[in-house]
Amino acid sequence: MADTKEFKRSPSRFTDRITADGAQGRPVEAGRYRLVVSRACPWANRSLIARRLLGLESAVSLAVTDPIQDERSWRFTLDPDGRDPVLGIRYLSEAYLAREPGYTGGVSVPAIVDEPSGVLVSNDYRNIPADLATEWTALHRDGAPDLYPRALREEIDAVAEDVFRDVNNGVYKCGFARDQGAYDRAFTALFDRLDALSERLAARRYLVGSAITVADINLFVTLVRFDAVYHGHFKCNRNKLTEMPVLWAYARDLFQTPGFGDTVDFDHIKRHYYEVHREINPSGIVPAGPDLSGWTTPHGREALPGTPFGDGTPPPPPPEAERVPPLR
Amino acid sequence: MADTKEFKRSPSRFTDRITADGAQGRPVEAGRYRLVVSRACPWANRSLIARRLLGLESAVSLAVTDPIQDERSWRFTLDPDGRDPVLGIRYLSEAYLAREPGYTGGVSVPAIVDEPSGVLVSNDYRNIPADLATEWTALHRDGAPDLYPRALREEIDAVAEDVFRDVNNGVYKCGFARDQGAYDRAFTALFDRLDALSERLAARRYLVGSAITVADINLFVTLVRFDAVYHGHFKCNRNKLTEMPVLWAYARDLFQTPGFGDTVDFDHIKRHYYEVHREINPSGIVPAGPDLSGWTTPHGREALPGTPFGDGTPPPPPPEAERVPPLR
Repeated sequence: MADTKEFKRSPSRFTDRITADGAQGRPVEAGRYRLVVSRACPWANRSLIARRLLGLESAVSLAVTDPIQDERSWRFTLDPDGRDPVLGIRYLSEAYLAREPGYTGGVSVPAIVDEPSGVLVSNDYRNIPADLATEWTALHRDGAPDLYPRALREEIDAVAEDVFRDVNNGVYKCGFARDQGAYDRAFTALFDRLDALSERLAARRYLVGSAITVADINLFVTLVRFDAVYHGHFKCNRNKLTEMPVLWAYARDLFQTPGFGDTVDFDHIKRHYYEVHREINPSGIVPAGPDLSGWTTPHGREALPGTPFGDGTPPPPPPEAERVPPLR
Repeated sequence: MADTKEFKRSPSRFTDRITADGAQGRPVEAGRYRLVVSRACPWANRSLIARRLLGLESAVSLAVTDPIQDERSWRFTLDPDGRDPVLGIRYLSEAYLAREPGYTGGVSVPAIVDEPSGVLVSNDYRNIPADLATEWTALHRDGAPDLYPRALREEIDAVAEDVFRDVNNGVYKCGFARDQGAYDRAFTALFDRLDALSERLAARRYLVGSAITVADINLFVTLVRFDAVYHGHFKCNRNKLTEMPVLWAYARDLFQTPGFGDTVDFDHIKRHYYEVHREINPSGIVPAGPDLSGWTTPHGREALPGTPFGDGTPPPPPPEAERVPPLR
């Protein structure tokens, strides 16, 4: 059904894949690639979590942008002199332009940049986490989980597709709808899907199989932002996450699992959404709420079937330089 | 402390008082005055509730405006031919102009209009409920409560002043703050006050004395709008009302008391705030949430000291023509 009032997400433009065999000209190699993220962005958060769970911090370096874009988009104003210390650039767009001179399209995170050349390799948020899981195995830490097990891929992809359409992208369809009808349809699809996911997760700890997979990463990145930004800013307000008991416990369980909550910076999240989207928040004022203290409370889901890392182990704490501020 | 970025509420301009002795030229008289309200407006809601509790429906007639003002402000577009059937006017501003030719100030509800002349008597939301309670006693129903008992007035006024500053007007100070500092101060004052009110109401059923008073009416009109509009639209989002157990039970108790919930139209409330304030909601899209079904759930406050109407009785249901739609 064509609907011109509905929010449309642009597809990722640069989708080169880094593979173990280097068949596409981009071989897996420690110390060669830089992952550029904003901690505000749910699409980037997927790659951040996968990198942490797999122990790829020393193999793939990390650049964190300012949560507030300016008219030239994502920028390295958190770094000394406003330049990424490895790539030497002030704006992520410079890596896009190195890839395609004269490029005028969108600049998005996550982005993987080839360090020696400064050229953008990929901004494909959908494939980067799965590729980190399947192509980078030689560089995984001991005890790294299998986030995209071959036997479960069909089910993971099916769940992830529903979650993408109705939840990950669904919250944006609510927030950026241009008429009441488009909003109402997105709202209904979102909460119908959350209800179905609540049912699915009532008696099992994780979405697919018995351990964490990329399907859980994908759902988590939206749930963790739900009350802080989507509930009010995007009008996803049938309930707060805290009022959906199964999903709230599921989200807390993941938040408290090493590799998830330690990638989340609520200050970056709130400032990004509320300061950047002036078309829906003209004042740029950032809400002081919500109370976030619930995220660290017991969730009780250890009793359900499933173990977080299967036969593997949790990752150690993040490197000192990558620590996020504690919850306030 | 002067603060030009803070929202300032204009004082009511027309404050003639209708008194039992007619000393100010406006005597109490059945069938003479018309109360004009919007069901969206918390200030008007105070008068609506007082009129219901006191059984003044047949003595003081009621006009309900469209929840959406246009550039000429409140209008009677819900009535046949867009005219109030008693006053014969299309806009409430016509009664203001009859009072003061050339008037160019704000047009607000509640408004009391003299029916024979069509002239505005008062738009003084602060005094109308108390005057209905104290000056109109000859026309009260049998069993009407004393909403403003002489012995408690000092305490009622003190509580109401705190509630006005930090809660009734406080939510507007959050929503219409023009910088982060003004918002943050209003937010802190609001939730500090709600915490103090929670403490006060933990062991007593009503705010002052042992029965409902105007102090309760004043607090109720903001609480009933809290999750529907103030939480998201005005960024009053430390918690939802549903997450503050004492106040949520207190608000439900009042909502379920005849004369309170039967004056509340959530559809009018949501459409008014979200469609009219384009400066903070440019799209005019009205959120589909929140889930309102909790309002009719048991509250358990019958066990606390206090009885709703003291020695009096509850009012009968509203007249057929004044019924609000059931909760959806």
